[in-house]
Amino acid sequence: MTTRRHFLQMATLSAAATGLGSKVRASGKKTAAKAADLQIGIAGYTFLKFSVDQSIAMMKRTGVMTLSIKDFHLPLDSSSETVNAVLEKFRSNGITIYAAGVIYMKTREEVDRAFDYAKKLGIGMIVGVPNPDLLPYTEQKVRANNIRVAIHNHGPEDKLYPSPADVYDKISQMDPRVGLCLDIGHSLRAGTDPVKAITDYGPRIFDLHIKDLASAAKDAKAIELGRGVMNIPGVVKALNEIGYAGKCSIEHEMDMTDPLPGIAEAAGYFRGVLKTINA
Amino acid sequence: MTTRRHFLQMATLSAAATGLGSKVRASGKKTAAKAADLQIGIAGYTFLKFSVDQSIAMMKRTGVMTLSIKDFHLPLDSSSETVNAVLEKFRSNGITIYAAGVIYMKTREEVDRAFDYAKKLGIGMIVGVPNPDLLPYTEQKVRANNIRVAIHNHGPEDKLYPSPADVYDKISQMDPRVGLCLDIGHSLRAGTDPVKAITDYGPRIFDLHIKDLASAAKDAKAIELGRGVMNIPGVVKALNEIGYAGKCSIEHEMDMTDPLPGIAEAAGYFRGVLKTINA
Repeated sequence: MTTRRHFLQMATLSAAATGLGSKVRASGKKTAAKAADLQIGIAGYTFLKFSVDQSIAMMKRTGVMTLSIKDFHLPLDSSSETVNAVLEKFRSNGITIYAAGVIYMKTREEVDRAFDYAKKLGIGMIVGVPNPDLLPYTEQKVRANNIRVAIHNHGPEDKLYPSPADVYDKISQMDPRVGLCLDIGHSLRAGTDPVKAITDYGPRIFDLHIKDLASAAKDAKAIELGRGVMNIPGVVKALNEIGYAGKCSIEHEMDMTDPLPGIAEAAGYFRGVLKTINA
Repeated sequence: MTTRRHFLQMATLSAAATGLGSKVRASGKKTAAKAADLQIGIAGYTFLKFSVDQSIAMMKRTGVMTLSIKDFHLPLDSSSETVNAVLEKFRSNGITIYAAGVIYMKTREEVDRAFDYAKKLGIGMIVGVPNPDLLPYTEQKVRANNIRVAIHNHGPEDKLYPSPADVYDKISQMDPRVGLCLDIGHSLRAGTDPVKAITDYGPRIFDLHIKDLASAAKDAKAIELGRGVMNIPGVVKALNEIGYAGKCSIEHEMDMTDPLPGIAEAAGYFRGVLKTINA
């Protein structure tokens, strides 16, 4: 019970400090309820080889109804008409688009374009990779538009943000609406236990890319969620500790031409972990 | 810790009493290991619409490599040549056939045939439904052949064994090699919480059919594992308490012409529950 009380205290403090943990209440009962509240989503890259209609069908089949949309489903320079038509397809099928990304931003114009795109989509968060020298400008845009930016870590071979620390260290003094999309696979390949990253960067974690790896090596290959080395129960418990109110988006990066069984297995696995922690 | 110690004592007592819980050891460390040891299988009925080759492909894709074979994949009157050819297909793909069933037995001849079949397959367990008046004869065959029979409960509309109690009450005084294949879905529809059935009938539970239901009503429909009312964490914890050494076989009874995503989701869900209980 001591540990649980400590978790609660931490969660409550975190909620008070950041205003993000709105689901956290100071009662043991609610800690359990919180786990069930964690919502599974899908990172759009999963559907690289599929149309919007095919992607919608896979989401409905697996019951995962929340998407971070990727630009191959809705190009960054789309007209408002195209944006509305694509959004309506998702909406009429019960799917919520909560973010867009990953969007790379190498110039001011690309930062501007990303924010214009987010405004057209009516979403509150960009999952993005602004070049580090563009971070001050990105922060200005965050403030001007009240749209959050979750910066994505991309593993040891990435020149910009290999590990979550490479994001955090650059943004920790910025507006609290600049944070991380923690990719747990790339984090582990870069030598950072994602459980520790969640604990260390708590209120700055805005989004998650959930996946598994066959090993913790730098060049480890993707594997179905639950069959590899990833500590998903630990991730979920850490998210509960920080009062995480974002999504947990499956990014399935194998069997790209036939991902449905793997997405289903991942959704099932994550739900099994949530249900058990909540039991 | 008190509860955990109690589980351990119970599990150890149960193992000592029945000899079935060979994986149970009297140390807290090993309780955790036990959960991971629970092995997922597939109940052959899941593959009603598919050939042996197609079924093997689905098992390999989902990583579930243990099967209770159903007669449409290997008819009861198969020659030894056919039996060996089919078994070799599974074996060469890394799949273990641990049981056969569900096999209905309405006459002495059908009991004889089921045991002859099990002997030809070299398996130690028949998942079967002998008519109640054939139970004494079935028990004789169990003793003569040292092959266990796990009797399957089939829900409220079944005339013979609607609930697990309808099996247990008829076999509780019989040879300890006569037991239950607890179908958790049919059990719940018949008004028996499967968690309670596992606890009540512990050493007589030889096999499990794992599934989920949209509700606990008598006519409740199947739903993907984890999306319904079934308490899978409770089932797993109860299995650990009794020192269960059998399989947990997914029986997917929906989308029969396209079951792969549902099987994958079920396998993922069950693994997520196991991993978390074991964490």
